[in-house]
Amino acid sequence: MTTGFFGDLQSVRYEGPDSDNPLAYRWYDPDRLVLGKRMEDHLRFAICYWHNFCWPGGDPFGGQTFERPWFGEALDQAKLKADVAFEMFEILGAPYFCFHDRDIAPEGASLAESNRNVREIADYFRPKMEKSGTKLLWGTANLFSNRRYMAGAATNPDPDVFAYAAAQVKNCIDVTHELGGENYVLWGGREGYETLLNTNLKQELDQLGRFLSLVVEYKHKIGFSGTILIEPKPQEPTKHQYDFDVGTVYGFLKSYGLEKDVKVNIEVGHAVLAGHSFEHELALAAALGIFGSVDMNRNDYQSGWDTDQFPMNVPELGLAIYEILKAGGFTTGGMNFDAKLRRQSIDPEDLIHAHVGGFDACARGLLVAADLIEKGELSKALSDRYAGWEAPRGKSMLSGALDLAEIASAVERENLDPQPRSGRQERLENIVNRSL
Amino acid sequence: MTTGFFGDLQSVRYEGPDSDNPLAYRWYDPDRLVLGKRMEDHLRFAICYWHNFCWPGGDPFGGQTFERPWFGEALDQAKLKADVAFEMFEILGAPYFCFHDRDIAPEGASLAESNRNVREIADYFRPKMEKSGTKLLWGTANLFSNRRYMAGAATNPDPDVFAYAAAQVKNCIDVTHELGGENYVLWGGREGYETLLNTNLKQELDQLGRFLSLVVEYKHKIGFSGTILIEPKPQEPTKHQYDFDVGTVYGFLKSYGLEKDVKVNIEVGHAVLAGHSFEHELALAAALGIFGSVDMNRNDYQSGWDTDQFPMNVPELGLAIYEILKAGGFTTGGMNFDAKLRRQSIDPEDLIHAHVGGFDACARGLLVAADLIEKGELSKALSDRYAGWEAPRGKSMLSGALDLAEIASAVERENLDPQPRSGRQERLENIVNRSL
Amino acid sequence: MTTGFFGDLQSVRYEGPDSDNPLAYRWYDPDRLVLGKRMEDHLRFAICYWHNFCWPGGDPFGGQTFERPWFGEALDQAKLKADVAFEMFEILGAPYFCFHDRDIAPEGASLAESNRNVREIADYFRPKMEKSGTKLLWGTANLFSNRRYMAGAATNPDPDVFAYAAAQVKNCIDVTHELGGENYVLWGGREGYETLLNTNLKQELDQLGRFLSLVVEYKHKIGFSGTILIEPKPQEPTKHQYDFDVGTVYGFLKSYGLEKDVKVNIEVGHAVLAGHSFEHELALAAALGIFGSVDMNRNDYQSGWDTDQFPMNVPELGLAIYEILKAGGFTTGGMNFDAKLRRQSIDPEDLIHAHVGGFDACARGLLVAADLIEKGELSKALSDRYAGWEAPRGKSMLSGALDLAEIASAVERENLDPQPRSGRQERLENIVNRSL
Amino acid sequence: MTTGFFGDLQSVRYEGPDSDNPLAYRWYDPDRLVLGKRMEDHLRFAICYWHNFCWPGGDPFGGQTFERPWFGEALDQAKLKADVAFEMFEILGAPYFCFHDRDIAPEGASLAESNRNVREIADYFRPKMEKSGTKLLWGTANLFSNRRYMAGAATNPDPDVFAYAAAQVKNCIDVTHELGGENYVLWGGREGYETLLNTNLKQELDQLGRFLSLVVEYKHKIGFSGTILIEPKPQEPTKHQYDFDVGTVYGFLKSYGLEKDVKVNIEVGHAVLAGHSFEHELALAAALGIFGSVDMNRNDYQSGWDTDQFPMNVPELGLAIYEILKAGGFTTGGMNFDAKLRRQSIDPEDLIHAHVGGFDACARGLLVAADLIEKGELSKALSDRYAGWEAPRGKSMLSGALDLAEIASAVERENLDPQPRSGRQERLENIVNRSL
Repeated sequence: MTTGFFGDLQSVRYEGPDSDNPLAYRWYDPDRLVLGKRMEDHLRFAICYWHNFCWPGGDPFGGQTFERPWFGEALDQAKLKADVAFEMFEILGAPYFCFHDRDIAPEGASLAESNRNVREIADYFRPKMEKSGTKLLWGTANLFSNRRYMAGAATNPDPDVFAYAAAQVKNCIDVTHELGGENYVLWGGREGYETLLNTNLKQELDQLGRFLSLVVEYKHKIGFSGTILIEPKPQEPTKHQYDFDVGTVYGFLKSYGLEKDVKVNIEVGHAVLAGHSFEHELALAAALGIFGSVDMNRNDYQSGWDTDQFPMNVPELGLAIYEILKAGGFTTGGMNFDAKLRRQSIDPEDLIHAHVGGFDACARGLLVAADLIEKGELSKALSDRYAGWEAPRGKSMLSGALDLAEIASAVERENLDPQPRSGRQERLENIVNRSL
Repeated sequence: MTTGFFGDLQSVRYEGPDSDNPLAYRWYDPDRLVLGKRMEDHLRFAICYWHNFCWPGGDPFGGQTFERPWFGEALDQAKLKADVAFEMFEILGAPYFCFHDRDIAPEGASLAESNRNVREIADYFRPKMEKSGTKLLWGTANLFSNRRYMAGAATNPDPDVFAYAAAQVKNCIDVTHELGGENYVLWGGREGYETLLNTNLKQELDQLGRFLSLVVEYKHKIGFSGTILIEPKPQEPTKHQYDFDVGTVYGFLKSYGLEKDVKVNIEVGHAVLAGHSFEHELALAAALGIFGSVDMNRNDYQSGWDTDQFPMNVPELGLAIYEILKAGGFTTGGMNFDAKLRRQSIDPEDLIHAHVGGFDACARGLLVAADLIEKGELSKALSDRYAGWEAPRGKSMLSGALDLAEIASAVERENLDPQPRSGRQERLENIVNRSL
Repeated sequence: MTTGFFGDLQSVRYEGPDSDNPLAYRWYDPDRLVLGKRMEDHLRFAICYWHNFCWPGGDPFGGQTFERPWFGEALDQAKLKADVAFEMFEILGAPYFCFHDRDIAPEGASLAESNRNVREIADYFRPKMEKSGTKLLWGTANLFSNRRYMAGAATNPDPDVFAYAAAQVKNCIDVTHELGGENYVLWGGREGYETLLNTNLKQELDQLGRFLSLVVEYKHKIGFSGTILIEPKPQEPTKHQYDFDVGTVYGFLKSYGLEKDVKVNIEVGHAVLAGHSFEHELALAAALGIFGSVDMNRNDYQSGWDTDQFPMNVPELGLAIYEILKAGGFTTGGMNFDAKLRRQSIDPEDLIHAHVGGFDACARGLLVAADLIEKGELSKALSDRYAGWEAPRGKSMLSGALDLAEIASAVERENLDPQPRSGRQERLENIVNRSL
Repeated sequence: MTTGFFGDLQSVRYEGPDSDNPLAYRWYDPDRLVLGKRMEDHLRFAICYWHNFCWPGGDPFGGQTFERPWFGEALDQAKLKADVAFEMFEILGAPYFCFHDRDIAPEGASLAESNRNVREIADYFRPKMEKSGTKLLWGTANLFSNRRYMAGAATNPDPDVFAYAAAQVKNCIDVTHELGGENYVLWGGREGYETLLNTNLKQELDQLGRFLSLVVEYKHKIGFSGTILIEPKPQEPTKHQYDFDVGTVYGFLKSYGLEKDVKVNIEVGHAVLAGHSFEHELALAAALGIFGSVDMNRNDYQSGWDTDQFPMNVPELGLAIYEILKAGGFTTGGMNFDAKLRRQSIDPEDLIHAHVGGFDACARGLLVAADLIEKGELSKALSDRYAGWEAPRGKSMLSGALDLAEIASAVERENLDPQPRSGRQERLENIVNRSL
């Protein structure tokens, strides 16, 4: 027996590119082997609880557009919401979901009550997870919506807020652990500042470092084997967020000795807000050894804020997934759809259309990326380009065997005059399009 | 006897705010004591050679607008250029200048010849420096203009280009050292990429790390006591530059163990291109212990490229210099004017007007900042805001004495419910304006 | 008897630059004559109802931070809000205020009831306006918050929404007229689109043209002598708003024959979002003959959305007010503060500090601008630069007396070879700073 | 006999999607019928002379990277350049080309000599055009590179520069006319300003209006039947360009009564710099009746300047070409490739690869767009959405038959309460991807 929210919508099945059915997968075929691995195991799709079931459709200039029978503050409504959520997971055949603590259960009169509410809903989830086979990709705590966090959580000038946030996180890690979550995420929603005039930057960074260390220490203490993930974002809601981008997060982790214990959850739209391409952030995280997971929601290129749209542009997805495959693919991470419907998409069916289209676009991107890897033209061109570094002079310079004066002396002695070689960018771009 | 380039322009003198003379300082009074230190010693102005004496006024859509008698490739022209440069330093009373190797001397048929040309002009500088008292704030090597560097210098796929760049830098550090330079700067003009399709990010970062280590090792070897500075910039000319911003550079330095040996030279316009305020980059560098020096040229807020304009906005300069003063002020660093005239400002006199206005705006910014410090309202508000961290719970959480479970347990036990306090941003902004 | 909301705060008075009182005006001296006109009459400050009394402090990642006793949906609360609003107008000595219909009164069960509520509060305003002397700069209708407007008001695909919006506007113009409002504003909050895929651009532009024509016709019909104003904004909340910027609005007005009847209300932050400086939009509107009024709230230069901050940067304000003065100053328009407190500024007193600082910054900007005009150096430089167009060739070319072939023939015959002259940008910027 | 520049490269032929030949067309099949029209006649590809044969590969931080035997100022070099250009047109099978006067021939000692040089090369083109069948899409005059134009051409403060520009344009239109050019383009490279401080906006707009009127009048006088096109761009090289975007240009044309005589040439990258999607500018131009032609070169989404890259993203091209087809396709316009190689792509072969990839991507975009039109799902959804405007109330409101009071009265009387309907954005995006 279902809630009836989705009417008579059936489970979405793979029907191939020629299907006329708008609610079929054309490209996402979970069992199809790609580079020797099942598509589902490559992509590890997760559906987010927050945008799909909690967000009312508001923006800074208008309120609720979605009308959902479970909107409200009662535990029964939270349970109805869970019922609908798991119905949607099953309709879509999504292997994973993700949640914030405040998404799934109402805030109580005290933190103790709030935490109990979270546990009650977690208990309500467990049989549903078992029945449906839906797993938890990650859990996280909402440390930004309540007014107590208006000046930050870990970085709040008031240590009581830090303590409150720590207590909320502890409960949320516990629950994530108990539900078999494969990662735990920290997005520093308000870990940043509005003005330097009221901000002690060094103090706040130290607080943030300590907070993260508390989490890592606790993870080990309770034997949680999932990955701790930070989600970079440069700004919004704050003017400046400390976890600006992958490069900044890496410096922060190094600073507090956490670069072995923490990885990044990279969001398409956050990369773009920081002035990067998504594939840049992926490649950089891989190069620095901190690649963890992704949020696949894109931003509008003409909007200066987070639009959290469903992924759609196949060649862009191909380039991004190519970087993910080069990085070895996901281990504990996956592709979370932290995407939200446009606020005008008010029909229940819109939720399904959006995910079907997004899953298909990612599946198609995977096929592009796999084709690039199988053909090997890009990687061949790359190794040719850097071949000189495998030769003696390159090796000895890179190893540190030669000092600056020795190198300089050789250049003058040999009258070295290196000639530029074509970077061949357009040819390489054509190779990508040939795999589309 | 002068070159006559500046006609009968006299040295610019401090005449006070009420002067009618457009070529007088109204606020820059080198000997005026501000917070117990001479204005000149606070500001440490430097004039850049490149934009003032070498740039022809071109942009991507048009060529030369400036007509200078020294434009050309002959050493005699380079000497005439030096004559005019020192005339300008004296007219302005600037204590420092900065140069690239390729600014001051023509490129030769080989690197050896190019290096000799650089030395010849350095020798030509020495007596002029002594006579005028103008000192060298920093030297740097141009590793981006010549087509051999089109794919990077240290990060070039061809190790011969790395070697060539190393040899050029060695000569330039030597010359900087001999001329008493107080810093040596590396701006990674083309240390970045145009497309990930032809880029091995990890390889290139390792090359860059090695290159910088070579420089640091060499500095120590020759006993150069100046500071090695990296100049962050997020993009332009490349799509992505590795030294994106202060946070990214810090991670890079930590990665290669260089954070004690290298500091940053922060440029206003580069900060803005990276999505930061200038004062953010200053405050962050100070917090991370890598604040070194600044380039004071601003960007146009509506242009998406580096416009390198002279500083003019006094309240913005006040906020920036406030951060510099909070960081302890400059040690070896200073305020370089890496600014260029608008390409329509073709008269010799425009060079003087631009610097006079820029020096005055910075001097005025210093007075704003000093007033803020003397009044102490901002720092008082700041320490009040974070006072809780001096109390027992704050201290024990920050020190690591409490673990996550202990903190959580206390929160529930005490039923902690922290109440938000006003961030008072508007009041603090008013305080700043009261010092204007 | 007061509501007590502002405690014992007294009216803010002008005390001059040396006052120690944080809640005094240092520069805003209403009766001071500037260029022969009272400061108050130059600046015509207005306070907006919406951000100050209705906005709960929410952003896309968090909810209410302000706690106001009048928050709620009852008419009594609306009256308490009005009481506090007029107390604030009096404390600040603001000559004007502005409102949306939905700010001042709760939405009813039908439009008829909503309209009655608006009238009831308007009736409640009238004696307060008389007593305090506060006038209405402009009224406007909120056609964007309610979900019925999610796809636009005038540009909605559903003509019933167009009708509903028209009915709401009619009531709001009536009330504005009755309260002696000097302008009526239309901000096209959702007059734009999210995706072209579901948008008929030509159809929606025609709807918008018709809607505006209805308003203009109605204004004449009822004898409303105020100015109809459009407020340009490029995006947010929609991806693209039809009233993108001043240039676009002008083309739209010309298209529908409305350029004589409608002017623009230019907001600082909207100009910046559209890629312009504020002074550009002012100068362009003046050149096109459609300059009307301004919203003085600025945006953060590093944020890609509307931050609606209080104006603070004096030299920027100076440049903007210089353009306003060159345009002849305001007639029916004024300087509306459509600014909102930072959401962390939760104390009642913050409302006062913010406005005091903003009024003072604008007053200081006026003094800068007036000084520039009195000295006349900028205008002299400008007329010198274009002097050639007063000479015969310039006049005959601009008048159309010569055709292309005749001009071309003269150029070849006379072997014309015009030489560039310095644009003197830096000197002109220095002149501005000398008036600071 | 060929110049040998392209070695033994053969003409590029259509070989279908499965070809292994990197220098074959996979999708661009000129004779294939799409929606009943030959692909070539839909796309009307043109190759630009400037970027391919004249640009040396410089950027603001470095000079020439391309080494071409024809670089120089002699007429013989200009002829060699023409030889190579027509070899490339034939290799690619491009139906059109475009040029600036200064691209094709060296500047002389006087305008008369410069004009003679342009004619000499035009005469050199004519037999080549006949032999190869390559036609001229449009000609244009370079009014921005020479220093005489540093402060604008038509908008220069010096009327002699206006005259000089007029004379240059006259010659260029004559030559375009004689060569059978189908359009004449004006890109206002420096028709804008650097600072309002030295700019009389109204005066400059009037100059620009007069200049454009001169061109239109002259076109009619000589019987040139091609279209006059303006190319919008918001900024770069100037801070603000008057032809900011399609909406602004339309207002300008209306202002000077030119909207019937002038259309727009829309460039992908310029749209993006102005804060628009390319398809927005296309749709708006179509709605306003001024759609003319396009420049297909894209910008990098992370770079704030014009990068002029070859088109590659197929789904984006599909959306854009869908708008072009909805606008009725090209009449005299076409798809100019105003794209430039990356400056590291220094091999002659790179020129061919880049165009082959770009032509193929556009051809593929055409197929996507045609499929969308043939299926009709998008247009069906659109007409359904606006169906209410075909009903009586919608019609009478839009026609002006009802006034504001009548509409308002009906709303209250009928207690109208319109309910929102889903905008279905995600479903529509899925439809687009199904045609990919």
